[in-house]
Amino acid sequence: MTLRIYGDSISGNCLKVKWTAERLHLPFEWIETSVLKAETRTPEFMALNPAGQVPLAILEDGRPLSQSNAIMLHLAEGSALVPVDAYKRAKMFEWLFWEQYSHEPYVAVVRFQVAYLGKARESLEARLIERGDAALARLETQLQQTPFLVGERLTLADIALVAYTRVAHEGGFDLSQYPAVTDWVGRMETALGIIRSLGVLPCVCRPA
Amino acid sequence: MTLRIYGDSISGNCLKVKWTAERLHLPFEWIETSVLKAETRTPEFMALNPAGQVPLAILEDGRPLSQSNAIMLHLAEGSALVPVDAYKRAKMFEWLFWEQYSHEPYVAVVRFQVAYLGKARESLEARLIERGDAALARLETQLQQTPFLVGERLTLADIALVAYTRVAHEGGFDLSQYPAVTDWVGRMETALGIIRSLGVLPCVCRPA
Repeated sequence: MTLRIYGDSISGNCLKVKWTAERLHLPFEWIETSVLKAETRTPEFMALNPAGQVPLAILEDGRPLSQSNAIMLHLAEGSALVPVDAYKRAKMFEWLFWEQYSHEPYVAVVRFQVAYLGKARESLEARLIERGDAALARLETQLQQTPFLVGERLTLADIALVAYTRVAHEGGFDLSQYPAVTDWVGRMETALGIIRSLGVLPCVCRPA
Repeated sequence: MTLRIYGDSISGNCLKVKWTAERLHLPFEWIETSVLKAETRTPEFMALNPAGQVPLAILEDGRPLSQSNAIMLHLAEGSALVPVDAYKRAKMFEWLFWEQYSHEPYVAVVRFQVAYLGKARESLEARLIERGDAALARLETQLQQTPFLVGERLTLADIALVAYTRVAHEGGFDLSQYPAVTDWVGRMETALGIIRSLGVLPCVCRPA
């Protein structure tokens, strides 16, 4: 059975799994599953993932796996996206956990509230915006030192972090304040084959 | 140089790193660093970790590593705490990312606000308590099926999740509602050598 990825194309957490699979040339079937239309809450989907969340991968042997960064790691193990050097690999993990704890809950949440729920940015908790900016500033500090987050080579850390960073402006964050981040976003979009004017590349679903 | 771990003994994120090092019989120096006393914000500490956070590991070669789960993974790589089977390893990662995204921000945050900042539980956002209980319920569901989170063997997922689960009652969560979790907490405390009546074992610091 082909790898199946259930995901929502407006979700960075879902897209990072898709980009990883594409970059590794893995055959997969993408099943568009809208959070806003509550397609993650249907009985059919809940039977696959009782947590009612995307992304969800159904592996070739039929076993399920959730959590975007866990799926990426599983797909990419042994590939050039995971450093062989133990310290670099540890730094990649440091960024992956930081992404879920200190970046996504601010940058992605503000963007979702503003761009998808139509809330005024000014009505949000100030803390969300402050911490989102702090996360972007931390990326800037690193990317002024190295071309990618863990050094000279693109790793899963870059794919995970670029997913919501590249759309941070949709939440009102001013990326022009972060020139090294802006440059890196451009390089990552080229590397991952993302066409900005179209948002995301249309999914090429392969037959199951 | 001996591995150094800067950590605060009231922080589950710090203790899980300590427990991992102890379980692996790694020599290490524990440097008690209090968050409440702002010892993570001194110029000396900020020079080691500009993020001003613990835990922080300074590896044998002097290089720094932060993010509790990234440090645990680095210390435990190749040990029995990380499953060899690729799917089990992926499930371990699923729990580790879930811990930082869906458990710690609720169970640990409520406990910190109530037990350390002295806030009334009723004054907290209801969402924090609801999601904390949802996280505990999810652990219960798994632990009714398998003795440890990833199956028959204790992995890093158990060490990471037990850290704040075992003190959830300090935030007013009623662990007696979750019998399989309570049983697992007891087994984990025994396995990790944690003496409940003393809180945590006194640190045996080894000379640097």
